Parts: sequence; structure tokens; C-alpha cells
Amino acid sequence: MKGLARTGKGQIGWVEKPRPSAGPRDAIVRPLAFAPCTSEIHMIWGEMGDFMPPDRIMGHEAVGVVDEVGSEVCDFSTGDRVIVPAITPTFGRVPAQRGFAQHCNGMCSGMPFCTAKDGVFAEYFHVNDADANLAHLPAGISLEQAVMIGDMMTTGFYGAELADVALGSTVAVFGIGPVGLMGVAGAHLLGAAQILAVGSRPNAVKVAREFGATEIIDYHNGDTVQQIMDLTDGEGVDSAVTAGGDVSIIGQAVQVLKPGGTLGNVNAMEHAENIPIPLAAWGSGLGDKTIRGGLCPGGRARMERMAALVKHGRLDPSLMLTHRFTNFADIEEALILMHEKPRDLIKPAVILE
Amino acid sequence: MKGLARTGKGQIGWVEKPRPSAGPRDAIVRPLAFAPCTSEIHMIWGEMGDFMPPDRIMGHEAVGVVDEVGSEVCDFSTGDRVIVPAITPTFGRVPAQRGFAQHCNGMCSGMPFCTAKDGVFAEYFHVNDADANLAHLPAGISLEQAVMIGDMMTTGFYGAELADVALGSTVAVFGIGPVGLMGVAGAHLLGAAQILAVGSRPNAVKVAREFGATEIIDYHNGDTVQQIMDLTDGEGVDSAVTAGGDVSIIGQAVQVLKPGGTLGNVNAMEHAENIPIPLAAWGSGLGDKTIRGGLCPGGRARMERMAALVKHGRLDPSLMLTHRFTNFADIEEALILMHEKPRDLIKPAVILE
Amino acid sequence: MKGLARTGKGQIGWVEKPRPSAGPRDAIVRPLAFAPCTSEIHMIWGEMGDFMPPDRIMGHEAVGVVDEVGSEVCDFSTGDRVIVPAITPTFGRVPAQRGFAQHCNGMCSGMPFCTAKDGVFAEYFHVNDADANLAHLPAGISLEQAVMIGDMMTTGFYGAELADVALGSTVAVFGIGPVGLMGVAGAHLLGAAQILAVGSRPNAVKVAREFGATEIIDYHNGDTVQQIMDLTDGEGVDSAVTAGGDVSIIGQAVQVLKPGGTLGNVNAMEHAENIPIPLAAWGSGLGDKTIRGGLCPGGRARMERMAALVKHGRLDPSLMLTHRFTNFADIEEALILMHEKPRDLIKPAVILE
Amino acid sequence: MKGLARTGKGQIGWVEKPRPSAGPRDAIVRPLAFAPCTSEIHMIWGEMGDFMPPDRIMGHEAVGVVDEVGSEVCDFSTGDRVIVPAITPTFGRVPAQRGFAQHCNGMCSGMPFCTAKDGVFAEYFHVNDADANLAHLPAGISLEQAVMIGDMMTTGFYGAELADVALGSTVAVFGIGPVGLMGVAGAHLLGAAQILAVGSRPNAVKVAREFGATEIIDYHNGDTVQQIMDLTDGEGVDSAVTAGGDVSIIGQAVQVLKPGGTLGNVNAMEHAENIPIPLAAWGSGLGDKTIRGGLCPGGRARMERMAALVKHGRLDPSLMLTHRFTNFADIEEALILMHEKPRDLIKPAVILE
Repeated sequence: MKGLARTGKGQIGWVEKPRPSAGPRDAIVRPLAFAPCTSEIHMIWGEMGDFMPPDRIMGHEAVGVVDEVGSEVCDFSTGDRVIVPAITPTFGRVPAQRGFAQHCNGMCSGMPFCTAKDGVFAEYFHVNDADANLAHLPAGISLEQAVMIGDMMTTGFYGAELADVALGSTVAVFGIGPVGLMGVAGAHLLGAAQILAVGSRPNAVKVAREFGATEIIDYHNGDTVQQIMDLTDGEGVDSAVTAGGDVSIIGQAVQVLKPGGTLGNVNAMEHAENIPIPLAAWGSGLGDKTIRGGLCPGGRARMERMAALVKHGRLDPSLMLTHRFTNFADIEEALILMHEKPRDLIKPAVILE
Repeated sequence: MKGLARTGKGQIGWVEKPRPSAGPRDAIVRPLAFAPCTSEIHMIWGEMGDFMPPDRIMGHEAVGVVDEVGSEVCDFSTGDRVIVPAITPTFGRVPAQRGFAQHCNGMCSGMPFCTAKDGVFAEYFHVNDADANLAHLPAGISLEQAVMIGDMMTTGFYGAELADVALGSTVAVFGIGPVGLMGVAGAHLLGAAQILAVGSRPNAVKVAREFGATEIIDYHNGDTVQQIMDLTDGEGVDSAVTAGGDVSIIGQAVQVLKPGGTLGNVNAMEHAENIPIPLAAWGSGLGDKTIRGGLCPGGRARMERMAALVKHGRLDPSLMLTHRFTNFADIEEALILMHEKPRDLIKPAVILE
Repeated sequence: MKGLARTGKGQIGWVEKPRPSAGPRDAIVRPLAFAPCTSEIHMIWGEMGDFMPPDRIMGHEAVGVVDEVGSEVCDFSTGDRVIVPAITPTFGRVPAQRGFAQHCNGMCSGMPFCTAKDGVFAEYFHVNDADANLAHLPAGISLEQAVMIGDMMTTGFYGAELADVALGSTVAVFGIGPVGLMGVAGAHLLGAAQILAVGSRPNAVKVAREFGATEIIDYHNGDTVQQIMDLTDGEGVDSAVTAGGDVSIIGQAVQVLKPGGTLGNVNAMEHAENIPIPLAAWGSGLGDKTIRGGLCPGGRARMERMAALVKHGRLDPSLMLTHRFTNFADIEEALILMHEKPRDLIKPAVILE
Repeated sequence: MKGLARTGKGQIGWVEKPRPSAGPRDAIVRPLAFAPCTSEIHMIWGEMGDFMPPDRIMGHEAVGVVDEVGSEVCDFSTGDRVIVPAITPTFGRVPAQRGFAQHCNGMCSGMPFCTAKDGVFAEYFHVNDADANLAHLPAGISLEQAVMIGDMMTTGFYGAELADVALGSTVAVFGIGPVGLMGVAGAHLLGAAQILAVGSRPNAVKVAREFGATEIIDYHNGDTVQQIMDLTDGEGVDSAVTAGGDVSIIGQAVQVLKPGGTLGNVNAMEHAENIPIPLAAWGSGLGDKTIRGGLCPGGRARMERMAALVKHGRLDPSLMLTHRFTNFADIEEALILMHEKPRDLIKPAVILE
């Protein structure tokens, strides 16, 4: 079968590999839609792929149809249409039993796609522990919507959850790429009253407002921190979601948090040894500003809840789809587009059906 | 009346001031025991007192007897023996209603002693909102125990609470000064199975073991982080309490946390612009390692709970009392002792009765 | 001044009383809008007023203008337009410090209106601890909206909060009177995907759908429990809010909860010694179905958050206003209407401006 | 192989069955120690076994040595000494991913022993998903201690956890059979200051005090509720654990809870349609008294934490072992003893090594 692989640092190319086979609890899935993600950009052009074997097939965002299931799989059959989470943990492991399946076999080990095996940009791909990780695609959800669920939606929402967004609160979301936009939507769905979204690209600004942003902070108009403080009468925000930028964004978010507030980071950062936390803004260590950052939890239960939100019309994540492709081979162009990040891009995806 | 004041940067001296008077909800208290704290050292010899008015009377740790109450005070009368919390918030304020009384009027504003008015190293001192902040000293608690409750115990315990210490978990406590020792005791009382205490002073090591430390990590024996990883089979700890050291301790604690673990800092840090969080150990931002740091909550309800623990024999905080003084004027020597930190010192206190 | 009072069991009438006066921290407020509530019906025609003194002025839902403030009030002045919460606790009390201000001086003591002093159906009324309990009425909120905040909205939302409504979950709301409707809206704002509302009155059904109900369960169509199980593929719901009916509703809610689910009751029940919890449905005691019931927390911080939701357009609680009156004396008719509960009634209110 | 089975309602007897075999992820374990439990009494002499097939081997509390592992088991080998939890869930199921593994395949389905397959009172027994459910028996824990971990300790502790026992709080524990005693120990380890244990058997009273009970409530001395209220100055308790008695105990516990308090039930109740919750004591539905009841969570992670507590000397659960047997066949006598409940019995066990 064919797959689009990282063929070396900064290089991609098509490879031919045998179709994967299913162990007793696994499934083999044929993609119906897939999308590239910033993580692939980090893996191919950044530091995150430095220890990868050559010709690793990329991709971890997909919706598909089950092509084969192992002998112990109970809930899925060939032909089922499924949402595939980016994170497919082994739920029996001790860290998973403690609530952190995404770190089931070591930090951030819950995503075997790309890191431990081939990814989803292939004619077929392998999903471990199908009963625990796949979710049936409900009727009434389009592929354009569904392909946003497995990573963008769950990751952005996780940012809002990490940030303890509360009913009637004020939230700042730093970054309005697709994860940040889903952070806006997550904060909205969790009951925020006021959502300040930091970003400037017109397409993204428009979608941010549709997802619930009440104010847009554009750094071209002055210091981000100052703008947020001004818009909140000098009080700052209850929660901050960081979903973009470099390590300095964490410090900005700490500065705008009220004492008692919480930061939820879902941005994978590179190119720095340390994240600097401003001591004064953190109350010399005593400000009761909680700093969290995590990997989106995957697995079936979470996918079902995400899908239920889309199915019941609570949000339409396909609003983020700015660049739609229709052929299998287009994933290469979509991936390059993600690398180049033209100003009108939010999220590209290949919809095969 | 007489009081021991900060008379200038790096200077202390006795001052004569009028006895304070009680507003309708306040109390005037005469000390039965008091103790100096590292915070005073920061205020007098460090940066934290740079904006203080001259001749501010120091001290925020005391047990006393009520000398006068305002007309609206219901639950306390002249002659009552009381525990005085270091933190005496205004509980009606909006941040207090949200659960952060210690930041009721702005970050860390919950301790008016020393920062907004004279402290407790005086013949009489003022307590705002007596019904909400004082706690009756129960029979069966000695002054030596009680003087540890209002700051050391509640602060150290808060570290363990911030760190989400869970039943059967493994906890590292960085620093075994009096706050760190109370962090050890707090982790023990919250059900930790294994407590790794970082420190080397023999007196403190002995008390740490009595409070529940199962292992002592001495930096003279090698890298602290490595020792903790070795003692936990490379897994690290579920919770870390930081209660001493400079800003670099936060990074060490992040390194030894498991994914999903939590850090609780109760150390007031100085002399740095930023706290560096090591990016790799924090999972590039995705490690689900929560970083908290806060000011001990004060108030009556918490004091009553702390006192109940001592009364029912759950711990004896007077084990930390290494230097006991008996005269009012001895507070000066106790304060200087705190500044000089001889190797056998854990905590000095003046017990007047 | 004039006020509408409970003049005896099952009797109401206008009384003349002196205008109340403000203690140092209190405010005297003149109503701009007020509304009767089922609680008054319980107090006048049910058991809840059995121990009330005669001629107690009724009413605890109001928006008003500050007419006088005590000497220690900082944040409010004569002429300020304010939202008045039904629950006005004393926040310094020990139970309040532990997070239960609504029970500050004993169970359900947080509402002095009607129970401990005259209520708001008067030309002027008294608010204790104004800084802690009043909230400024933000620009952009109508009186019709604002009068729903102080009890209906905060109470219904509290039901959803007690029920631990989670992102993407399925929720049943029993009862779609005004509190139940706010339970629907609260579940919606907290991120429920599917909301099953139990009720049948056409006006209320229409508003339930506008507030986010995805299905309506009408008991005329068969057994409520069975209908809910059918609509959830036999799985039941994650959360249940009970906001109406008699004690048997609790058992119904327990029956439809999944193991691990939570019930949040905000219905004041009468006319029974016990609430029966069905043993089998509660897993013989082991089903991990949490049963909560509580009084809405009041106070300023919560009012500000509720107001922020309305101000930022997250919901329009005035959709519940079916019977609008405009004269001060109309409160009598509104109260009788509440007692008679005609089929087209959701909520009556008197809007004076 | 031989096993002790329920041969009919109210009947036990030895049966001969083939040794079970291990699927790819399972283990076959040979017991080193086992113990009967009240659940078996319910299954044999009560209602809970009414739908069981004949000759079902009883028993769900055991420590053993691994005799065989399936091909996919990674962390255990033949000869390993292991703690076996009573509850051995399938952790990948959706309810488990939501935190309720004990209800993974329907309410209370997490214990296949006895209910879905043969139990542990046999020469060999089967454990599903060995890597997820077994825990290595650490050096330094005796079999007498270890045999208490898999059900008694985890169940009793779960009661204290359900009851939200907090640092410095007051807790009532209803029932001081082995689960109740572990409830006392759990409350103690979670930091309760005052623990009121309800019971009267002298052996159990003695052990309750060793586990941390500060007061014993004996119903022979008067009304239980009244005694608890008297001992708490009329305030009641913050948390209540119910671990014995009939359905009326829940009502008693609700009566002694403070507003804001929590009840944690771990008692499997029979012989009633409904549990009556006293309406007045529950604040007419508004008292903010949370009622929880659940099945102890099992699995490896929890067993490891329980074992760590014993290993580090935080408690000695073998204090409950009043009747020690040494031969395999003695389990019959131990089980009958559990049924007859002589006054000096706390817990019997068979220790085979």
C-alpha cells in the first residue's frame, strides 16, 4: 500500500509498504478523510522527529471505515464508519488507571501514530485496542466535521478543561489556529461569559467570533497583556488557554491571570531549554495561579462525547476547514500547505467521499 | 506600648506606639506566645519590605488573649485565649467568595500584619474581623504547639494540599525548614505512603522522620533529582512540595514529577526575574504536570481544623521548637537567630506563660 | 411604607411598616422590579411559614436602586442600580469559609428575606452586608432579565452544577417550571450534548427548547423513566436535575442515572417524612450514583458571574416572563397567579420602570 | 481441582472442576491466603445469589502465586507472588474510561469472581487482564496483611474517599466490622481529626481505637444520632461512612451530617425496596448533604497504592485477623464462621504458608 512518509529531516515522500495486520484486539481502518497537523510539521521540519526511523508514515487525524478487526474485538465490524482519536492509549496500564491514559507507557506515549508505528496518511492504518479507542461515527455528522474531532476538537477542548473554565467566567485564549479556535469553542461550551481571543488572521478572527469569542486581541494594536488588562478593568482573567506561540506565551498568560486563576496549555513548544515564569506576576510563588499543560486524552469515551456535541448541534468544527481536498494524493499538498501556513489557512483536510 | 519594628532596611529596633483600638468587628489581643518567621527576614533584610513605612512593627505568628472586642463581635470576649492566623482576610470580598480569601483585596493581600498595619511583636495587636479570623485555643494544646499553627502548620499543610497529595502516593518535599517539615506532616496526614524529604540539617532530619518522612535526600550525597529517581525506581513522584531554596527548586520538582503529578509551592522566592521550567521535563508543554504555588489560606475555619488535629493528637508541631525564649524582649534575639540560621535551628519562639 | 405580607396561614395582605434602616455595612434598596416565587407559596399556603411571625413582608426576588448605604459600605452608593440575590449570607461565618455560605448560620439560613426579616415586596427593603451581597446591574441588561437572576437563574444553574454536568454528557431535567428551565439552560451552558426535559406545558416546552432541551419527555406519553431509557439506548443519563414534583421524583431520577452519574436537586419538597431511594436502582448501595440537593448559593461574586452571562448574550432569562405587570400593587395579583399556576404561566414579574 | 462452592440457596459444598486456563492476557493463580467476606454470605444465604448457576465456586479475597500467564501478559511471570483485587475490571470499556471501571459492563459488573465465573476458594483461580489487575506483593508485607488489601482495605478506604474526608474534619463511621474498621483507618489516613465509630463488640472497639477512632458510640448507651450530636457540640460531622446495618443507617447518617457534609456508603443492603432519606434532615432537599454509595474500585494501580501504605507502615490491616486458619480445607469453617458471626469475630482468613 502507499503512504506519505517522513523520508528524512525536512523531507517527505511517498513510500510503498505492506498493509498492516490486526492483532486480536486491533482494527485496520481505511481512511475516509484525513488532515495534517502542526505536530507533523514539528516531526518533519522541527526537533520532534529527530529520533524517528526513516520512512515513517505520517498522520494522526482521520475518519475511516473499518476494513478488518481482530478476533477479540466486540463492538466494531468491517464496514463500520469510525472516528479515530489521535491518542489511542492502552487503558489497562497503571497511569491510565490513575486518569492519565495519554501517558500510559511514559510521558506522551499515548499517541503511537507516527511515534511508534506508521500513521494514517496511508491506504490502510492500524488502530490498537479498537473497542477502547474507536468511536462509531453517528449519523448526521459530516466527514468535514468528523475529521476535526480526533485531535483539533479534543485538544482545544482539553485546553479549556485544563484551564478550569467556569460558568460565567472570563477567559483568554492565546492563539487562534485550529487548536486555539477549539479552545475558544471549548471555553464557550463550558460556560465562559467573556472570551478574549488573541490573534489577527482575518479568517481565524471570523471563526473565533462564531465559536464564541467576545473580544479579539490583536498584537498589532499594542501589548497583548495590557490590552487584556484594559478589557477586564485591570482584573485579568479567570482562565487562560495557550494554544500557540513560543515559550514566552506562558509568561504572558500568567501575567493576565487573576490570583486563583488557571492556565491550560495545549501547545507543543520547541526551541527552548526553559519556559520562563515571571516571578512577580506569579506572586513570588504565592499567587495561587495554577499552571497546567497536557496532551489531549484520547480513547473512545471522549470521542463519543465530542461526537455527541457535534451531532446535537452544539458546534460546527467544520467552520475551520479553509482548504478542502478530495483525492488521496492531495494529502501531500495539504501537508505542505500546513508547513507554509498561508495567511488565509486555518485547517486543510482531504475528504475522500 | 512597646513593639519590635523594622526601623529601616536591614535594621530592627524597639519603638513606642499607642495601643491600637478595635473597630466594631475587631479585637485587640495581648500575646501569650509569638515567633519570628522567614517572611520577616525577607521584609527586613530582603526585598519584601522595600515599600514599608518606617517603624512598622513586625510579626505575624502569635497566640494570645483577647483584651478588647468591638461592639459587633459575637463569639469572642475579653480573656479568651485565641489562635491568631497569619492570614486574616476580609471574607466578604469577591475573591474570597470564589475561594481565594488570601487574595481578597489583590494578590497576597490577605495578611495585613506587617504589610498594611503593625504586626504582633508588641504588647497588644489588632485583629480585623475577629469572629471570622480568631479561633478559640482548645484545652489540651500547649502554647508551644499553638504558636506553630497560625503560619507554619497551615502553610506547610497548604503545600501538601496544593500538591494534591493522595492516599498511598509518593511525595517529595523540597526543604525541611519549619514550613517544609509541616509539608512532610501534611503529606503524611493526607495519606502519602512514601515521603522523600530533601534536606540535611541533623535536627531537621530527625523531626522530618518523626513527621513521616520515609527517606531523606541529602544533596551532599549527589544530585537531588537523580537520588529521587533512583529511590522511586525511575518513576518519580506523584506530588512535590517546594518549601525552600531558590527559583531553581521548581525545575527540580518538575523533573521528578510523574506525568499527571502536581507541584505545590509555598516558598516565597526572591532575587530572580523568572522561574525556569525545564521544557523537556514538562513534556514540551504536554506532560500534564500541574504547577501550583499559593499563600496559605487563613481564617477561623482553617485554624479550627488545624487545632483539632493537634488536640486529637494527630501531630505535635512543637517538635520543631528548637529555641525557646520566655521574656517579651527575647523576640529580638529570636528574630536575629532566625536571620542567622544556625545549623541546629528549626524554629525559635517566645512563650510568655 | 407599604408591603405585601403573609398575614396568616393561607392569607396575604398589605401592611404599613416603618422604612427599614441601614446598619454600618447594610443597604436600603428601593425595588425596580420584583417577582413572586414558589417559595412564597410554600411559606403562605404550605408548611414553610408555620413558624413565621405575623405580617412578615414577603418577597426575595428583586432588582432595585440603592436608597441608602451604611457608613462602612465601600462599593455601592445611593442611586446605584443593583441585582439583589435571594441568598445574602454572612460570608465570614465558619460554614461560609468552608464553601457553604448558604448555610452560614445553620441549615438554609443564608436567606434572611422572609425567614428572618421582611422581604422585598415593599417600598424599601434591607440588604445585609451590601458589599458582599449586592451586584451592580451592568448596562445592557433589561429589568426583565435582571429580575430572573437573583433566584431563578442562580438556583436552576446550581442544580446543573450540583449534578456535575460535564462536556458532551446527557442530562435529564425533571420539571420545567422557571427553576427547571434554568436547569436546562445551566446544563446547556455547562456543555451538555443531549438534554431531556420532563414537562408538558406548551409555553414551558417552547422555552425549554430555546434554552437547549434536545428532547421533551411528556408523562402523558407513558412512563417517564421508560421514555428516558428508550431515548438513551437503555444507558440512562450522566446527570439529572430535579426541579419540581414531589419526593418520588428523586427515585425516578436515580433510576435513569448511569452508574457514576449524579443527581442535583433544587426543589424544596414538602408533605413527606422521607424521600424513598429505590434500593435496586441505587445498586444496593454500591451503584456510585451521587445524590445531591442544595440551596442556591447567593452573594455578589455569583451574581456578577450570572450577570456576565446575560450581558454577553449567553442566554436570555426574560424568555420565561409570561405575565408582566407594571404597578407596585400588582405584586399581589402576581403572587396569586403564582399560587393558582394557570397552564400558560411560567413566571410573573412586576417591572416598575 | 477442588473448590468450595455454593451448591444451592443456603448450601455450600466441595466440588471438583477442571483447572481454569489462561487466555492471552489472563493469569492462573494458586492461592497463598484467602478469606471469606460478607458478600459470600449474601450470595449463599441472602438474595444476591438467587440467579447464580449451581456449583459456583465462592471467594473473591486472595493472595496467591502466579501459576500460568497468557502470551500477552508482560509484567507477571510464573512464581510471582501477587495481590488479587476483588474487583478486576476491563479497563478499556467506556465506563472505565470515565472513571468507573467497577461498573465497566453494567452496574457492579467489575467483580467477575463468583458473579460471572468461579471464585478464589479453589486450588487455582482465573484472573482476567493480569497486567491491569494483579499487583506484585512487595517484600515486607505478610500474607495476613496482604489478604486484607484486595477487598476489606480498598472497600473501607473507598467509603472514606466517597465521604470526602478532609484534613482536620470530624467523621462518623457507622459499623465496625472489617469494612467499617478500614473506613476508620481510611478516614484517619485522609487526615480526619476526630473519628466517631459506631459499634460495640469489644474486639472491634479495640481495633477501631488502634486504627484512629477517637470516640466509640455504642447504641446500648442511647440513641446513636443523639450521642453523635452531643459529642460534636450539636454541630454534627463533616463526613459519614456507612459500613453496616440496614437501610435505616443511611437516614441516621444524613441526620448527623452538617450542611455541606458528605455520606459515603460501602454497605451492600438487602431486604428493602427503598432507602428512606429523612426529608427534614436533608433540608427539604436543600441541605447540601451529598449522599454517595459505591463499589470499591479494583485494579492494579489501586492495589499498588494500598500495598504501599502497608509496606511503609501506615497501617497494619492484619490487626483485624481474629480467626486464623492454616489448611486449604479450613476455608469451609472460616466461611461458616463468617455466617455465624460470633461476637469475638472480626475477620477470619486461611493462611496457607
